[in-house]
Amino acid sequence: MAGSLDPSEYAYSRVIFMSQEKTNQSWGGRFSEPVDAFVARFTASVEFDKRLYRHDIMGSIAHASMLAKVGVLTDAERDAIKGGLKQIQGEIEAGTFDWRVDLEDVHMNIEARLTDRIGVTGKKLHTGRSRNDQVATDIRLWLRDEIDLILAEITRLQLGLLEQAEREAETIMPGFTHLQTAQPVTFGHHLLAWFEMLSRDYERLVDCRKRTNRMPLGSAALAGTTYPIAREITAELLGFDAVGGNSLDGVSDRDFAIEFCAAASVAMMHLSRFSEELVLWTSAQFQFIDLPDRFCTGSSIMPQKKNPDVPELVRGKTGRVFGALTGLLTLMKGQPLAYNKDNQEDKEPLFDAADTLRDSLRAFADMIPAIKPKHAIMREAALRGFSTATDLADYLVRKGLPFRDCHEIVGHAVKYGVDSGKDLAEMSLEELRQFSEQIDQDVFAVLTLEGSVNARNHIGGTAPAQVRAAVARGRELLASR
Amino acid sequence: MAGSLDPSEYAYSRVIFMSQEKTNQSWGGRFSEPVDAFVARFTASVEFDKRLYRHDIMGSIAHASMLAKVGVLTDAERDAIKGGLKQIQGEIEAGTFDWRVDLEDVHMNIEARLTDRIGVTGKKLHTGRSRNDQVATDIRLWLRDEIDLILAEITRLQLGLLEQAEREAETIMPGFTHLQTAQPVTFGHHLLAWFEMLSRDYERLVDCRKRTNRMPLGSAALAGTTYPIAREITAELLGFDAVGGNSLDGVSDRDFAIEFCAAASVAMMHLSRFSEELVLWTSAQFQFIDLPDRFCTGSSIMPQKKNPDVPELVRGKTGRVFGALTGLLTLMKGQPLAYNKDNQEDKEPLFDAADTLRDSLRAFADMIPAIKPKHAIMREAALRGFSTATDLADYLVRKGLPFRDCHEIVGHAVKYGVDSGKDLAEMSLEELRQFSEQIDQDVFAVLTLEGSVNARNHIGGTAPAQVRAAVARGRELLASR
Amino acid sequence: MAGSLDPSEYAYSRVIFMSQEKTNQSWGGRFSEPVDAFVARFTASVEFDKRLYRHDIMGSIAHASMLAKVGVLTDAERDAIKGGLKQIQGEIEAGTFDWRVDLEDVHMNIEARLTDRIGVTGKKLHTGRSRNDQVATDIRLWLRDEIDLILAEITRLQLGLLEQAEREAETIMPGFTHLQTAQPVTFGHHLLAWFEMLSRDYERLVDCRKRTNRMPLGSAALAGTTYPIAREITAELLGFDAVGGNSLDGVSDRDFAIEFCAAASVAMMHLSRFSEELVLWTSAQFQFIDLPDRFCTGSSIMPQKKNPDVPELVRGKTGRVFGALTGLLTLMKGQPLAYNKDNQEDKEPLFDAADTLRDSLRAFADMIPAIKPKHAIMREAALRGFSTATDLADYLVRKGLPFRDCHEIVGHAVKYGVDSGKDLAEMSLEELRQFSEQIDQDVFAVLTLEGSVNARNHIGGTAPAQVRAAVARGRELLASR
Amino acid sequence: MAGSLDPSEYAYSRVIFMSQEKTNQSWGGRFSEPVDAFVARFTASVEFDKRLYRHDIMGSIAHASMLAKVGVLTDAERDAIKGGLKQIQGEIEAGTFDWRVDLEDVHMNIEARLTDRIGVTGKKLHTGRSRNDQVATDIRLWLRDEIDLILAEITRLQLGLLEQAEREAETIMPGFTHLQTAQPVTFGHHLLAWFEMLSRDYERLVDCRKRTNRMPLGSAALAGTTYPIAREITAELLGFDAVGGNSLDGVSDRDFAIEFCAAASVAMMHLSRFSEELVLWTSAQFQFIDLPDRFCTGSSIMPQKKNPDVPELVRGKTGRVFGALTGLLTLMKGQPLAYNKDNQEDKEPLFDAADTLRDSLRAFADMIPAIKPKHAIMREAALRGFSTATDLADYLVRKGLPFRDCHEIVGHAVKYGVDSGKDLAEMSLEELRQFSEQIDQDVFAVLTLEGSVNARNHIGGTAPAQVRAAVARGRELLASR
Repeated sequence: MAGSLDPSEYAYSRVIFMSQEKTNQSWGGRFSEPVDAFVARFTASVEFDKRLYRHDIMGSIAHASMLAKVGVLTDAERDAIKGGLKQIQGEIEAGTFDWRVDLEDVHMNIEARLTDRIGVTGKKLHTGRSRNDQVATDIRLWLRDEIDLILAEITRLQLGLLEQAEREAETIMPGFTHLQTAQPVTFGHHLLAWFEMLSRDYERLVDCRKRTNRMPLGSAALAGTTYPIAREITAELLGFDAVGGNSLDGVSDRDFAIEFCAAASVAMMHLSRFSEELVLWTSAQFQFIDLPDRFCTGSSIMPQKKNPDVPELVRGKTGRVFGALTGLLTLMKGQPLAYNKDNQEDKEPLFDAADTLRDSLRAFADMIPAIKPKHAIMREAALRGFSTATDLADYLVRKGLPFRDCHEIVGHAVKYGVDSGKDLAEMSLEELRQFSEQIDQDVFAVLTLEGSVNARNHIGGTAPAQVRAAVARGRELLASR
Repeated sequence: MAGSLDPSEYAYSRVIFMSQEKTNQSWGGRFSEPVDAFVARFTASVEFDKRLYRHDIMGSIAHASMLAKVGVLTDAERDAIKGGLKQIQGEIEAGTFDWRVDLEDVHMNIEARLTDRIGVTGKKLHTGRSRNDQVATDIRLWLRDEIDLILAEITRLQLGLLEQAEREAETIMPGFTHLQTAQPVTFGHHLLAWFEMLSRDYERLVDCRKRTNRMPLGSAALAGTTYPIAREITAELLGFDAVGGNSLDGVSDRDFAIEFCAAASVAMMHLSRFSEELVLWTSAQFQFIDLPDRFCTGSSIMPQKKNPDVPELVRGKTGRVFGALTGLLTLMKGQPLAYNKDNQEDKEPLFDAADTLRDSLRAFADMIPAIKPKHAIMREAALRGFSTATDLADYLVRKGLPFRDCHEIVGHAVKYGVDSGKDLAEMSLEELRQFSEQIDQDVFAVLTLEGSVNARNHIGGTAPAQVRAAVARGRELLASR
Repeated sequence: MAGSLDPSEYAYSRVIFMSQEKTNQSWGGRFSEPVDAFVARFTASVEFDKRLYRHDIMGSIAHASMLAKVGVLTDAERDAIKGGLKQIQGEIEAGTFDWRVDLEDVHMNIEARLTDRIGVTGKKLHTGRSRNDQVATDIRLWLRDEIDLILAEITRLQLGLLEQAEREAETIMPGFTHLQTAQPVTFGHHLLAWFEMLSRDYERLVDCRKRTNRMPLGSAALAGTTYPIAREITAELLGFDAVGGNSLDGVSDRDFAIEFCAAASVAMMHLSRFSEELVLWTSAQFQFIDLPDRFCTGSSIMPQKKNPDVPELVRGKTGRVFGALTGLLTLMKGQPLAYNKDNQEDKEPLFDAADTLRDSLRAFADMIPAIKPKHAIMREAALRGFSTATDLADYLVRKGLPFRDCHEIVGHAVKYGVDSGKDLAEMSLEELRQFSEQIDQDVFAVLTLEGSVNARNHIGGTAPAQVRAAVARGRELLASR
Repeated sequence: MAGSLDPSEYAYSRVIFMSQEKTNQSWGGRFSEPVDAFVARFTASVEFDKRLYRHDIMGSIAHASMLAKVGVLTDAERDAIKGGLKQIQGEIEAGTFDWRVDLEDVHMNIEARLTDRIGVTGKKLHTGRSRNDQVATDIRLWLRDEIDLILAEITRLQLGLLEQAEREAETIMPGFTHLQTAQPVTFGHHLLAWFEMLSRDYERLVDCRKRTNRMPLGSAALAGTTYPIAREITAELLGFDAVGGNSLDGVSDRDFAIEFCAAASVAMMHLSRFSEELVLWTSAQFQFIDLPDRFCTGSSIMPQKKNPDVPELVRGKTGRVFGALTGLLTLMKGQPLAYNKDNQEDKEPLFDAADTLRDSLRAFADMIPAIKPKHAIMREAALRGFSTATDLADYLVRKGLPFRDCHEIVGHAVKYGVDSGKDLAEMSLEELRQFSEQIDQDVFAVLTLEGSVNARNHIGGTAPAQVRAAVARGRELLASR
């Protein structure tokens, strides 16, 4: 069949119409009037989908190579197409390519230019595919690359965390629950909590990449094509892991984009949590860290201001990624098969989510190694807020009292401390003995921060030894990627 | 105080720094190093907030006029500022303005240029305000204008609906519940359901406009200003309805943006519902309407295709407005007072939501008057799907049977119809009498569509008389706007 | 027609079937098999919609009264229906009513019981309505009441804020932007920022109530009814402001529920912001306020813990209201007219959003008056963080220096303060004079907090006089409700 | 230390207080007043978290076993605890357990009861854990089970699809893009598109399960515990794949819940798409399938109605799962480490999302095998809508015309067909020859549906042979699970 039917004519007539008549007349026969000018602008996508140009060209070159392998194109035709497309890529990257809204999208812009450059052979490229499977292929190739770049930024940020954590394995700060001082922890341990979150983000993106890296090309408009295509060849050329199993699904599936936005939302949620802590820690009330000036901005009115702009902005950007996720879920909800024009709306939120995540990770990967903890202030804070109250209770248990009474005794001591503005370690022995005669001079040793953190010495615990062990495990993990 | 303190120096020193040193050094004293280059790009907003230029200039002119009224500026200074700003507006609109990312935002770009143009007087403009209240004012002025444009598009669309509804007051189509044929309705009545939804959208936007049109200017950085400002003068010049009552709230409130996105989401949801119906109605299975070619596109592969692109795309665009709403709610969630950098993220979703709603309404306002209902097909469909089954039951009740039996009798007749592929009106008298001997020749009159719709003749009912009355009410409503 | 057709038979035959056969057989004629048991449970709504019983009965009584007025029911029938329904309400409130899942929903449960109690007359109640318009009416009546309760809680909370604000009109605390100390503000002023937010929430709910309080009853299944109903009578009896203008819209409109969830989301966002501040302020680092023990919980492990559970939980509950909004928007997106079963899913999110908002407001209205600010700590914090840096710059301007140099001088002084851990007011004159010889002994007066806040004395400013004026305005506003 | 410190006293004193005083007094020492009654109700979680009882008990038994292994408990103590917990499980399942709101949550209810039953040994169970890590463990165990149940339902639904697809491998229906007739496809192929979507849903849930199945137990309150716990033993007993690597992360991580809701949202989106198609296909306009009565409900007013309630409701339920996802993302956004009370709000949305997805899948798994396609109607529809227009164009290309002209010729023929109400195959040869003299009698063979679908014979294509191959692959996939 492919023999009697000239594929160049089959699929590419529209290009001629477009170039000649400056309007998309390929479906002219059935239509009585041209598309409304506002409608043409409203429905065109080239302004945002031109970003896919590199992956569109990559996909086209692989498609042409496959068509040559199965005999639909000659080798000479394939080479002409490849050459033409590479020149077009050069034009685009040099900024000399003339993008035309009347050609609707990135695909038609490139095809039209190809035919301009290499003549009728250019029209043969589209044989056995449609824009429905072409665009689905392009987005997947693009997203695959974006995921790889994002994974690299996560690794870079994680490496920075490991280094800081190792350096700060013994630094003591207050651990919080309910933002109330709870128990002393090591700063290295705190940083490694972030490391853990990022490890899961990494895993989720790797899982999403698996499902992204399957090839819809060959689905054609919706039902497959009558040309003798060999999809596994194209898939191999493009580095796809697998070929999509159903053409109707192939042109309408946007799961990978939603899954990416969900993984990106969780990752941004994590960065938003880190940001919240950085903002708190740089406040005059906490002063736990110093954020280098280059990640801050000032105020032209208030000379003292040094605002933690980067974490604030990252925290704020969380919303736009959540919004992209909401938008894509809404988009797909209730669509019947197969391709509907609604799907054109998948790109902008996906692009925006990927950019936002990548830039935010980059900002954090640059910033984290530069954070300077203020050891003395952290330590002093850990000594306050009654962080060793549990230790005092344990001390009394060891003196032979039932924990029930100990808890209550310490509670009363804390209440006294709140009223008098003193932490436990600041009270005199006399003051402490108001609450229990079992308290002796040795109580003050109990209230040391080092004893408290060192005692939590099991996997996942805050002891410096555990921080170092976790850093070692972390380095192995990063090395294995 | 304003006398001894030179406002030009107070507020504008940064501009000099910027122009001279090409970097935002106004806070240099406190900082040890410049902002990181990536951070500068990451935190700058001029690429999207330059869109506010017209409202920024409008606000600045009003602010300068007020300052002159209260004696902080001389009349000559005010005139110089006004003149300079108008020239800058001209430059921007002519495309000759040089937007600089290193100047961060629209405000600093315009101010720096003003000082370039008119010298030291330009530096006096910022007296008694800060960028925190300035940007909040700009967005409100911008959104107020956008709402007005959107309201006009709603009215235009509603007018088109009234005209179609009047024309189609007697056109009969099947009414659906559960997408199953339920009872006959008039097409005019159906169109007026859309009219009602849009009336509520209009109301919601008017309500939102009330809350948008309150002036934050005068809040300064967060606590108000020490200059003797007269906020009511500025408010009057800018057409604000009221002055914001609390400066901390003034710089951090973004309710109006969220409320707008919520109203826009509901409106898009309505357009999505209309779209769903238009897509159904243009399918080969329904064929209820003809959508003019200029609102459709074709396929270069499948010559018969005429796709309802505009409604599909509008349906798809619903997601991005829902996403903007989600994004803005997330943005504000949990922010302590007053202004935080997070808020810079309010603009892009708001801009996008407004553009999307306006364009979608415009597309519908253009398209709706051009829809051509196919009367014969609608009528035939109304005759099928057993739409007059209720009427047959009523007929039997009038013959003296209890409704319980009637409902069951008609149920059996419908079951027979489903099995034999015949609607009630297509059965012979003999066939009908299988189910009840009470059925006589006069039954066929009962099954007329006109009788069915005319009988629902109360306010809100589907009778043609009610459609005409509703159109009259609708015209009055539009006239009263 | 109403004369010849017995309405009791017309609409209520199903009840008999149900009561007798324990399965919803009213549509038996057309069906070949009963509903699957799991499906029956999956599709039933009585477990959540029984909550509407009071409004369902209220609506039915008004409907019966109208039917009697227009002659469809006799006065005796109306009285029997009213009496029966009131007895049923008593049974429900006494907990003796037997809710049956096989009767699907609240409407059929009550109707079936009514027929049990008063016989065949009960079956006449449903004349001229369907469950489609009945449920739409019930939810609106319910939501109207909920809004009124919520409005009352907002007012109560606002009253508490006014009282606190008046008491704390002169209390000075640091005002923050970017969570960095910015300028001193009064605590009363800060509380009034919350008051402003709640005023807008109040307005939005009042606006939403207008659109909620329109009556869909009379829309019947979708097209209106053939009975001579007088909708304005029912509307007046039920206190509706208006009658819905289109029956197709009447049964499918859920805008009011979405609009409520949007207004509730903004209100919860505000409570979440208050919560964030309360959590910060009760931390060991801030210690700005004391939250009474009755709004906190402790830890059984850590004796010192006193966790601000109420604000944390309210902050956490924000998400569920945002989720309800997302859910309802998704629900309606793309539904064709008129009623679809999807709409059954409108109730649970709406109920949950209303409950959450009301409980959260109640918790805040109880808690806010009990907050105890720690004046000394707030004051000391305002003295730190270089909050008077702007004042120092202004001081130098008054000494004759250009602001540009002043800003830089103060910037250097701040940098020195950061390095040496001293605030400006803590430096000796010698230290300060390192940065400018213009600084004299009188500089220390400039750094007073009172001077700073009193100077911001315009509407919306932080000066104590303005706080008192705003409280007075607030009291007038509350009095006018 | 563990030796000298009696763990039963350490951790369980609160239980005694609670049982004796009916109020949660374990933190009484530090507090001056009891918790407010409304606050107690507002902050309690037992009404919804009691659902976790089985997993709470399972976790406690494993924890006790581990404590015995490391010597913190004696074997006799362990056995007493196990016995007591199993009896409590029996009480709960028999409905005789007395849940108490004043005991706050499921954990305290069970512990208090355990101490009631077995005395002081019961108080030793909590040694080395806190409610923070306990609840995180419970939810993960619960969700792991839910995922397994959901996976089983997906497999059951997929099996039904394979069987239908095999049966309908040769059934021809119109394939749609833009809901416009595009090209003929096989019904089996269409069903397999759904199969593909579900395969991805299955994969995503398996990936989510990996991250769910990691054990936080051992994190204690936030920093780990001082007892010599052996976390790997507990993990093995509970079937966890791994032990969480950081205690701060362990008590605050809710990624797994968000990831589940994201996967559930995509799955519900798929079910919503299937639903949309089922609703369309059962409409009077499509009539492609017959949905058995047991999945439908009728109307008591309209005797003919048979509504596709199950798909409509599932489509409607999509929103609540999207809402749960939005809610959980919002919940976590911006929380500082470690545990905050906000997190209590994680359970209800998670429970609801899991229930909704499971029930919806169950309804579909029951329903899909019972769908009856109407072959004749599908076939006739495929013959209409000009589905073979592409084939006519190809025919003309084979006759030697350029495709450009062919496309236009066919376009004109389609336009004629639209105007005259005839499909291509219904036109006479004379009519067709108006558009091209190249058309001969043999054209009618070209327009056969079988030729069209059989020609698309590559992996993923619609040809019956490909459907059968895909079914075989699908069976292998299911067998491999």
